[in-house]
Amino acid sequence: MKDEERQSAELACEKIVKQFAVFNDLGELEKLAALFVEDGSFARPLDPENPTIGRAEILAMLQARPPRLSRHIMSNIVIDVLGPDEATGISYVTFLSTTDVDAARPVAAEPKIFVGEYRDNFVRTADGWRLKSRKGNMTLIFG
Amino acid sequence: MKDEERQSAELACEKIVKQFAVFNDLGELEKLAALFVEDGSFARPLDPENPTIGRAEILAMLQARPPRLSRHIMSNIVIDVLGPDEATGISYVTFLSTTDVDAARPVAAEPKIFVGEYRDNFVRTADGWRLKSRKGNMTLIFG
Amino acid sequence: MKDEERQSAELACEKIVKQFAVFNDLGELEKLAALFVEDGSFARPLDPENPTIGRAEILAMLQARPPRLSRHIMSNIVIDVLGPDEATGISYVTFLSTTDVDAARPVAAEPKIFVGEYRDNFVRTADGWRLKSRKGNMTLIFG
Repeated sequence: MKDEERQSAELACEKIVKQFAVFNDLGELEKLAALFVEDGSFARPLDPENPTIGRAEILAMLQARPPRLSRHIMSNIVIDVLGPDEATGISYVTFLSTTDVDAARPVAAEPKIFVGEYRDNFVRTADGWRLKSRKGNMTLIFG
Repeated sequence: MKDEERQSAELACEKIVKQFAVFNDLGELEKLAALFVEDGSFARPLDPENPTIGRAEILAMLQARPPRLSRHIMSNIVIDVLGPDEATGISYVTFLSTTDVDAARPVAAEPKIFVGEYRDNFVRTADGWRLKSRKGNMTLIFG
Repeated sequence: MKDEERQSAELACEKIVKQFAVFNDLGELEKLAALFVEDGSFARPLDPENPTIGRAEILAMLQARPPRLSRHIMSNIVIDVLGPDEATGISYVTFLSTTDVDAARPVAAEPKIFVGEYRDNFVRTADGWRLKSRKGNMTLIFG
């Protein structure tokens, strides 16, 4: 692959990583689910051994969560392009949240910050790059 | 627009978001003001309903703040290009600071971390991409 | 330089900044050392006045550290390309860690978060962009 093709793929996958977090935090869950391929797999950072498989199943799982005001702060997004249609990535997530979703902003967050990472596989489809699988893990807790 | 033009515009706007924070924290306020168009608008995250309008007015407002050692930690910068000369963006800001600006580094930060976001509008001018308007909000407080 | 060449160089250097942190946190220290040129220089954020010079010396210094589970959370990576083969950069680092490396994850981090920055010089070699020198500083402590 040429450098510009590789960097373009990296940017596309990095955008997916950032959109995933923003869509999650803003409650735009159908947009989030659309980042996956139809048979995509997602294992949440706080439950890494129980992946949910299938775009519709991921959407249903996310919609079934109790209300929570969250911020998934993403960083260190490193994408490695394996070929024209395949890439992997790691990214760090710093997570703060509260169940107090109706309070005036800014709201006090729960007194723990979680720091973890996602490990992703991406594929290029006719509609562009999509998540094939995402697995989260939590590593450190502050507070 | 072609993919490479869209990604190039995204990178240019993303750089503005990062430069805004760095210029702010390093006290390079004229460079910060130059990121806006002449009639740009800026509403600070802790005072979102009172935008300052005009590049010179933004500079004067920022210069009038009492001294503060701050770090605006930016993440989740997602830019959506609307056309060749127009884009919008969201980004997360994690804010720590102290008024103890003269102490030896590292300095103890105030015991609250603010997590919020900026919503931006960008336009492409003859001199490149610039901020047309920026509105901040704070969402969560930790500590 | 053309815009696309400049942005491509910025992306290459930004990737080095992110890889440095990930390789450090995952213990992939040979990969980390390979991000430097042969005579590269690295001054750690908590000891900025004592740079280690030389790729092999940097590797040895990093390998000699006592075990620590760390996360270097990188943000605000702003690269300025000075010419086809030279660039500088600033980036923010938010650092959490623990010496309790063998505990089940997630592990409680030490009760202080450090926020600092790296200032980097990059050069383009026959093998691509590399770090010529990196100097860290810590600015704020939370907790």
